[in-house]
This record gives sequence, C-alpha cells and structure tokens, in this order.
Amino acid sequence: MRSLLLSRRDLDFLLHDWLDVGALTARERFAEHSRETFDAVLDLAEQVATERFAPYNRAADVAEPEFDGERVHMIPEVGKALEAFAGTGILSAAMDASVGGMQLPQTVAQACFLWFQAANVGTSAYPFLTIANANLLLAHGSPEQIATWVGPMLEGRFFGTMCLSEPQAGSSLADITTRAEPSDDGTFRLRGNKMWISGGDHDLSENIVHLVLAKIPGGPAGVQGISLFIVPKVLENGERNDVSLAGVNHKMGYRGTVNTLLNFGEGRHTPGGAAGAVGYLVGEPGQGLALMFHMMNEARVGVGGGAAALGYTGYLHALDYARTRVQGRRDGRPVPIVEHPDVARMLLAQKSYAEGAVALILYCARLLDEERTAASDVERARAHLLLDTLTPIAKSWPSQWCLAANDLAIQVHGGYGYTREYAVEQFWRDNRLNMIHEGTHGIQGLDLLGRKVRLHDGAGLRLLLETIDAAVGRARAAGLTGEADAVGAAAARVGEVTAVLWGAGDPAVTLANSSTYLEAVGHVVVAWMWLEQLVAVGDRTGDFHNGKRAAAAYFLRHELPRTGPQFALLESLDRTTLDVRSAWF
Amino acid sequence: MRSLLLSRRDLDFLLHDWLDVGALTARERFAEHSRETFDAVLDLAEQVATERFAPYNRAADVAEPEFDGERVHMIPEVGKALEAFAGTGILSAAMDASVGGMQLPQTVAQACFLWFQAANVGTSAYPFLTIANANLLLAHGSPEQIATWVGPMLEGRFFGTMCLSEPQAGSSLADITTRAEPSDDGTFRLRGNKMWISGGDHDLSENIVHLVLAKIPGGPAGVQGISLFIVPKVLENGERNDVSLAGVNHKMGYRGTVNTLLNFGEGRHTPGGAAGAVGYLVGEPGQGLALMFHMMNEARVGVGGGAAALGYTGYLHALDYARTRVQGRRDGRPVPIVEHPDVARMLLAQKSYAEGAVALILYCARLLDEERTAASDVERARAHLLLDTLTPIAKSWPSQWCLAANDLAIQVHGGYGYTREYAVEQFWRDNRLNMIHEGTHGIQGLDLLGRKVRLHDGAGLRLLLETIDAAVGRARAAGLTGEADAVGAAAARVGEVTAVLWGAGDPAVTLANSSTYLEAVGHVVVAWMWLEQLVAVGDRTGDFHNGKRAAAAYFLRHELPRTGPQFALLESLDRTTLDVRSAWF
Repeated sequence: MRSLLLSRRDLDFLLHDWLDVGALTARERFAEHSRETFDAVLDLAEQVATERFAPYNRAADVAEPEFDGERVHMIPEVGKALEAFAGTGILSAAMDASVGGMQLPQTVAQACFLWFQAANVGTSAYPFLTIANANLLLAHGSPEQIATWVGPMLEGRFFGTMCLSEPQAGSSLADITTRAEPSDDGTFRLRGNKMWISGGDHDLSENIVHLVLAKIPGGPAGVQGISLFIVPKVLENGERNDVSLAGVNHKMGYRGTVNTLLNFGEGRHTPGGAAGAVGYLVGEPGQGLALMFHMMNEARVGVGGGAAALGYTGYLHALDYARTRVQGRRDGRPVPIVEHPDVARMLLAQKSYAEGAVALILYCARLLDEERTAASDVERARAHLLLDTLTPIAKSWPSQWCLAANDLAIQVHGGYGYTREYAVEQFWRDNRLNMIHEGTHGIQGLDLLGRKVRLHDGAGLRLLLETIDAAVGRARAAGLTGEADAVGAAAARVGEVTAVLWGAGDPAVTLANSSTYLEAVGHVVVAWMWLEQLVAVGDRTGDFHNGKRAAAAYFLRHELPRTGPQFALLESLDRTTLDVRSAWF
Repeated sequence: MRSLLLSRRDLDFLLHDWLDVGALTARERFAEHSRETFDAVLDLAEQVATERFAPYNRAADVAEPEFDGERVHMIPEVGKALEAFAGTGILSAAMDASVGGMQLPQTVAQACFLWFQAANVGTSAYPFLTIANANLLLAHGSPEQIATWVGPMLEGRFFGTMCLSEPQAGSSLADITTRAEPSDDGTFRLRGNKMWISGGDHDLSENIVHLVLAKIPGGPAGVQGISLFIVPKVLENGERNDVSLAGVNHKMGYRGTVNTLLNFGEGRHTPGGAAGAVGYLVGEPGQGLALMFHMMNEARVGVGGGAAALGYTGYLHALDYARTRVQGRRDGRPVPIVEHPDVARMLLAQKSYAEGAVALILYCARLLDEERTAASDVERARAHLLLDTLTPIAKSWPSQWCLAANDLAIQVHGGYGYTREYAVEQFWRDNRLNMIHEGTHGIQGLDLLGRKVRLHDGAGLRLLLETIDAAVGRARAAGLTGEADAVGAAAARVGEVTAVLWGAGDPAVTLANSSTYLEAVGHVVVAWMWLEQLVAVGDRTGDFHNGKRAAAAYFLRHELPRTGPQFALLESLDRTTLDVRSAWF
C-alpha cells in the first residue's frame, strides 16, 4: 500500500537524483556510510513512524495532555512511541560518533525526521526539541555539561526544552524579566515565569533539561544582558529543582505536545524558602541570545520541516480520496474526482507546495552538511551564509503554503474533509501553529529584510542570487529555456527591489512591508527549488517524472507570477501600513 | 463598550451614507417605515445577538450536539436563544405584512441577521435555514402549503431544512437516488438517504419542515427528473412521519449546528411497513432544482453574510487585542502592537476583507429590494440579473477572504490566538465550512464562468461591467482619479479575459481555471465595493472616514493587483490543470 505519510520515491529522488547525498560518503565524516546505510535508516524511520506514531495521531488530538494541578497526564501511546523512537537511534542520527551518534549526513537525518512529523507532529515535538537542545549544548556547553545533560538525552532518558518567551514578552526578548542571581558555588538561582514552553512538564522522561534565557542582575540592558542557563527539572543529586508547572495551554491543534507555563524559583519545590531554581550558565554572560540562536535556527528549519511534512501527508490523503471518490459522469462513466480539473488544480497546488517545501528543507540540511564537511574554509563560509540567509524562508514558506495545502486537502474532501472522521482537518489545525512559534511570520520577515539580506554588506543576498543564477544556467543548458527565464527574471527582481528598499534611506518605510518581501522572496526561492528538480528529472519520462514536470509547471505558471505585484508594491515604497493610525481602525 | 461583533457605525454608514435605504421608504412596499423603525430593529438585533447569542458561542462549540441513538441533545442555551430570536420578529423581517412579516427592506433585514451570525453562527443556522425555506414556499408553495407550514415557521414553532445531497451525490445532484412514488391521495412516498442536512433533527421546535429533492419514477433522467417535496418530521395529524435520524456528523467547527444523515422511508417510524415518508409536491414535477435554487441563491448570499460576519467579529477581536497588548518599545515607551506596521498590515487586511464583504452582502440585499420595488419591469429585470450574476461571488469571496481575515486575527494574537482561551480560533474553524456548503468554491467558479457570465448572451456580465463603470465615473467626478483608474482598468480586464476564454472554442480549456476566474473577478468586485465606499465618504475627515480611506487604499494597492497575474494566466488558456493525468500525482 502506498504510504499516506510521505513518498519514499520522492525522497529518494530528492536525496539521490538531485542532492546526490551518495557523494557525501567520499568525505571523511561520512566515510563509514553508503547508500545501503542511508536506505536502512530511512526504512526504519518510515516503519516506526507508520507503525508507532501514526496510529494514535487522532487519539492524541482528542485526549490532549491534562494538568490535574500536580502532574500532566497523557495517553500511554505517546510514551511507547517515544521509547520506540529512542530505539531507532535517529535522535542522534546526525551527531558525532564520539558522542554516540550515527554521524549520518544531516540531509538524511532530516529526511528521516520528516516521517515522524508527517505521522504525528505532536509527539515528534519531544525529540525535535531534545535534538535541538542537545545540539546547542554539544556546540557551546562545557565538557562536563555535555556529559551530564547531553548523554542522557541521546539515550532518550532526558528530554529538552527551550524557554524564551514570558507572559509579557513574546517576540520582544529584550523585555524578559527572569533573573539569574549568581550563587557562591558558581551556579545561579533563577526566578521568573516562562510561557509557551513545549514539553515543559510531563512524565515521559526521567528528567527535563530546560535551556532558559534570563538576565544576570547588573548586566547590560536589552538583549546584551541576556544569558543562557541549563535548568534541569531534577538536580544531579536527585532532588527536584525549583521549576514548577503553573498551567498548560489548551491549543486548537498540535495538541499532542504539552505546552506549559513554568515558574522558576517560586519555592514550590523547596519548602525551606524560595532560593530560586538552580541553573548552570552556558557560555559567557550576555551570550544568551546568540547561543539560543544556535538552537533557534535549527528549530526554525525544523518547524519548516514539520509544516512541509503536514502539507505532504495532507496532499497524499487528498489524492487518495480524489482517486476513489466518484462524482459526476463523463461519456456515461462515473468519474473519480481526481479527473475534474478543479480538483486536479487543488492537487497540483498541494503537490507543488509540499514537494517544493520538502525540497527546500532538504536543501537547507544539505547546506549544513556542506558547512560541516566542505574542503575549504571559503566553501564552509558560503554554505553557512546561504543557510543563514535561507533560514527565515525555510521556516516561513512551508508554514504558510503547506497550511494552504492542508486547506486545499480539506476542500478536495468536500464536507467529509470538514468532519473529524477524516484526518485532514487535524493537519490544518496542527499546521496553523507553524506561522506562530519559533518566531512569528512577521519576525521572519524582519529577519530576512532587516538582517539577513544586509549581512556582510549584502553578501548573503548576493550569494543567494548567484546560486539561483547558477541553477538558471544549468536549466538553460538542459533546454529548460522558458522555465530558466522565468526563475532568472524573478531572481533579478529580488535584487532590484532589495536595492530600492534599502536605498530609500528610511528603515521604517523599508521594513513596513517586510512580510510581503518575505513572501515574494519565498516564492522565488521555491520556484528555484522546482527548477532544480526539473534539471534533476532531465529527459526521463514515466508517471513520476511527468508528475514532477506538471507540479513545476503549475508552480511557475500559477504561483511564481504572484510575485509580480508584490515586487511592484515593495518598489513603490508603499506607506499604507505605516501611515495608518490606531484610531482609524 | 465598543461591540466586538460588528460596528454599528459602519453598518449605518453602509445603509445610509452609501445605500440610502431611507430612500426606500418612498416606495409603497416600505411606506410604513422610517429611519426610526430601521434603527429600532437594528438596535434590537444587536441587543439580542449580544445578550442571548454571543455569551454561549464557545460553550456550543465545546458541547456539540450529540445523538444518543434516539434523539439529539444540545445545551439548553440554544433553545433559549432561539426563543428570544423568535420574539424579535426578525425571522420574518423582510416578508410581506400579509403573512405577518415586518415588510422591512431586505437590506435592513440582512444587516440585522449579520449580528446573529457574528455572535453565534452555529445557532443562527436554524433561523437562517427556516427563513430561506419559508421564502421558497411563499414564492412557490400552494396557499394551503403556505398556511400549513409557513405560518408556524414564522411564529418560530416549526424550523426548516433543505435536503439535497446524498452520500454518493454531493455536488452532482443529477445522481441523487431518493425516490418519490405517487400515492392515491395525491401525496408522495419518499425513500432515500440525505446527507449533510443541517438542523435535520433536534427538539428545538415542534416540527421540522424538510424540503427534499427526489425523483418521481418514470420521469426524465438527470436534473430534469428532480422534483421538490415538503416532508415534515411530524404529519398534520400529529403522527411521526417516516423520517429518521441515521447519525450526526462531528465537524471541525460550526459545531452548534447539528448536521445530520437522514433516512426517508426506512420504516423506523411506521412499524406497520416501510411505505415511505409522506411528501407533498411543491410546484410541478421536474421543477425541483429550479425551485430549490430559489432557496439556494438566497442561502448562498446568506453564507457569504455568515462568512463576512465571522471575518468582522474576528477583526474586532484582533483590533481589541492589538490595542491592549504591549510589545517592544519606541522612544523608551512600551508600544501597543497596533502600532507595529506588520500588525497594522494584518488589521488593514482584515478590515478591507470584512468591511468589503459586508458591503457586498448588503449591496446584494439592496438589489433584492430593487427587484421587489423597482418602478419599471426593466429596472426590476436589471436588478434580478445583476444579483444573479453576483451571487457566486457573494457566496465565495467572503468565504475565502474572511477566512483569511480570521487567519490573520489568530496571527495578531500570536500564541494566544492559537489557544482555546481566545475566541479567534473558533471563528477560523467555523468559517472554514463556508467554502464547502451551499455549493463548493469550485461549483461557484463553474456557475460564474460557465453560466452566469453567459446568461442572455452575456447580458449579466455586461450589466456588471456597466455598473462598475458607472461607479468609476462617479469616483472620477469626485476627484478619486487614481482609485477610479485602478478599478476601471481591472473591470476592463474582466471583459477582455472573459471574451478570450469564451472565444477559445473549447469549453474544457475555458473552464479548467474557473476557480481562478472566480477569485479574480471577486477581487475586482470588492475593489468596486471599496470605490463605492470612497465615494460615499466624500471629503469627510475624522477617524472613521480616514479608516475607510486607509482600508480602501490597502485593498487597491495590496489586493487588487493580485488579479494581474490571474488574468494573464486565464488569458493564456493555461492547460496545466487540464492535462495532468491521475497517475502522475
């Protein structure tokens, strides 16, 4: 039976025909690997996701985690699935062998993880956050911190979180008020409240390793005063740390992931007095935000991956329905709705969004592999810069367009898609979170236009456009003239419009329409992803390759032209959103 | 306190400053009315909606109707609210005084009903369907049928439904299999299953009047063989008719409206034998679909109204949040997020969608008043034709874009908007139904491009474009040059592109992108609605009028240009969606 989670055929195409991950095995880091080991871990991911994660995806939505005032209760399937996941070793798939990892390419590890996100995004969040947490500590923690906290995470015994937001400070981290007082023993004592903490409390693991942003009193104001701390739920001596669960949020979707409000240092777990929660500084004081971005950038690409996976499984569900649901007649014969052009439109749109998004996510993972294993420092720096520039798009584009894909999956199902007897409505609800968490859509727009395209005097943008141009050149050489021209012209517009925006001399005007900029550049980037896939298809025929051509044609004809008016608006330095006054609403 | 349901200020502007409903009181039908009676009924609608419908909107979502195998249970607030609604007389607000109606303009009645849809769309569906059902019978039922069934509906004792779809035939009504056998007494006996019947069973009313499409054996094949029947839940003699509830659907949203699967004539309520459910033919045999379209066209505009109302209340909730939520600083001062340009963008978009949609719905209602009271047959026919042409847009545009508004309302709230502690996530879930029921989005596209713009040799489209051109002329005369030019150019494109589409000589190609056509023409129509509002604003200043200008500017600069690439695609007679094969997906 064809999987309704992802298409392994498509993943193989992307990994091998396009991204050539096999070539990575020539590099020292991946020398122990081969196509066979890649296939084996992908097989395992598909199997465990299908057999252990997918079956209770609906049940975990219906019976969301509940807080009885003491502890969080959730259905037992979650813990069992996470045990099975720990058994696969995929949590440390891309990590160094020296810490017990499989040392696989990130590209392969990312593809593996997509299976779990497609099967059950709510449960996947626990290992998702744990991997990102462990990676941050592996990069920036002390050897002792790594031994104490990362080891048990990789064994699946400890889980990790990231604690940034506070009730009064969501996107505005400069305004956090959690305080970390130095203690005589070199540790810190934290007091404050953290909001929106996914996986913040549960009984799924022996311990929870919170990575917490807080300010050390006397430090600089604003983000320069933010430091990063490890604050475990349970201390090394086995005592409870003073981290308490103040409540859980009841969400519209993504319900399998418990989302919490945590109080640090309120004295609940230390009856002798509220001395604060014990925390261990990571890195240097004031480095908190920079270090957290290590985790956040990875998490942002991962959020894009989750969105892409949800879009993909929704598409496959809609396709399955459209092939079996009969409606109307043609030449006297009942017609499956997949043959109605408007349904075909909705399926092509979903295919172009979901496969385009997965391509982008795997491309980003491939850049991380390049960064880790490139032969020269220059190549390493280029990979890093391109990944950095693409990160806000990798986060936001799938979140927006794979949500749109899920909307279309409902529409293909008609009334059935609106009922809870079918899976697609949950995908839509689940996916809606992705434009919000790990930095809202608006924050990604500010990051792209306000920061990323200006880094190193615009080097990030130049590199992006050069990379697209190179693909355009390859496409032209392959005879894809019209397609190459369309993507090339759109990429040129990105350069022109960015120059106008930053030549305006008034950052407020420039940034007023940064979400539109994000969306337009995102569409150009995904058009480029489709051009890359067309080149990889070459002149091969057959259903799979014809499908890639149809989806690429759909994207280039129906989607990419959306950017025309967006660029024109940006170029006009439109002030509508800037000039409106609060009282006018 | 400012209402979070709708803006009465805006309704007054639309009704009086723009649509000049006061002028209708010069016509005989409305001679008993005045600004005072209009105001009084609007006040009453707002009050009852606010006090009786809104307070349990969330509760009705959480505790959805449940079927225990015998009957449907729902929370008691629903019945109490509907009692209060019956007390207002708004159910028959626009109906003739001769049947006990208030004989108000439809424009005013529609505005009243928007309050209930904004407050609680789930409960509003019961009177919504009852009004449409009664209107169909008033237009096409026999005097006896009207006396027997309509009278109690207007008193609030009986409720109505429409029964079209069947499990195997959703949009494809030619394929319905419900049979109506003539009986010796002149009545009919119906057997079959009907799916997606809103309000199909409950204890809210003494009786339920089902209007059922069925085929009389021996009649013509296809839609010509469909007839319309009154099939009451309880017969005139007080016995249960053989209509039984087979199940209820569990929806993602709109949960307050019980949605049912009904079996007709399965013998459950007539133990002596399954003789079929007793039905009374409405009109002539074979007229079923034509008559049902009387109800369906009204219901389609009403669905657009519900979507608009949900978009509107979502916008007001987001605005309220954005004015109180503080995030970040400017000049050292904490800034409410309404002052962030990206939040202003999301609010302007919502305002332009919601107020534009409400304008369109009231404009359609005004056309119905014109049709009812125009001085000449020519004017009457023109009003009818324009309303007919606009109906698929009045249904689809608010359903699509006020859903987008609700999405933005969530986004303005950030993580809070994704929790069930805030109202906006429910609006988004509720609104998602509107692109599906009463004819899916795709069906509306086929109706507009395949039927409406071709009626009477294209007279419908010509009239629409002439009407827009007249508004463009008025705008130009008022000094709104740029705005008039933009809308005029877009309207001209509608004419050009339609000519290309129908000049292609291949209906399959023409109709392949009918959803894109629907969306592009919809945006042009709503741009026209904004131009109309700008003319009505004139040179008045102050916050309200400046807000109208800002929303119009947003729509004309950020939204209308979307149609450029859509028209270009249509003009290219793109075959992507037509040529893709099922196996390629």
